[in-house]
Amino acid sequence: MSDPGSVPSPEQDAALAPVITHALQRQVFVCTSKSCAANGSEAVLEAFKAQLIEAGVLYTKRNPDGEVQCLQCGSVGFCAIGPAVLVYPEGIWYAHVTVADVPEIIEHHLKGGVPVERLVRKRTGA
Amino acid sequence: MSDPGSVPSPEQDAALAPVITHALQRQVFVCTSKSCAANGSEAVLEAFKAQLIEAGVLYTKRNPDGEVQCLQCGSVGFCAIGPAVLVYPEGIWYAHVTVADVPEIIEHHLKGGVPVERLVRKRTGA
Repeated sequence: MSDPGSVPSPEQDAALAPVITHALQRQVFVCTSKSCAANGSEAVLEAFKAQLIEAGVLYTKRNPDGEVQCLQCGSVGFCAIGPAVLVYPEGIWYAHVTVADVPEIIEHHLKGGVPVERLVRKRTGA
Repeated sequence: MSDPGSVPSPEQDAALAPVITHALQRQVFVCTSKSCAANGSEAVLEAFKAQLIEAGVLYTKRNPDGEVQCLQCGSVGFCAIGPAVLVYPEGIWYAHVTVADVPEIIEHHLKGGVPVERLVRKRTGA
């Protein structure tokens, strides 16, 4: 266990990490591990980022009001059915996501709140 | 949009990705982007994996009954206060996590269900 005195306070941290007090609505994780990457997941990640930037909703240092964070992640066990994309806090796990599916996921799910059911393969929401 | 006929059915996918039907309890994301990595996050990730394996709860191909998945992820905006560790489905964001904190997070949070409050800096649970 760390010495509690060695950890900055939540208030000190909030000044250094604005995301703490920001009302982030969703996180989109795109698996970029071996199998997903071999099936084009890097392009899926870039498509999400580019289209979320265009829509003005990607959270970045330049756009700290963005409601959606988009990041890569390691393998979630969808190696044979990737690319895998997970959306939290709902805990929606998508499989077989291609660049062509990105606009639909953004429009229906990230903006409209309705998951794209034909690609949903698991749910782990709270 | 993909041709719906080109995507395998959920049943076909479940045969290829056993995690789909597995009752996964939690996902632990450890940020391994630049700033967190420079502050030791790779060692934090390895400590989580090793100790979760030892406890018999890490989900892997070899241990498909494991209740906890542990994976790396990209930057979550905690660059100045990392290493960052996120636990879903609760949506608990930890900052300043060191290898020394890993046993406490496993024992209290992942096994006991009680977050380690002194390191919690954000909540995005559903």
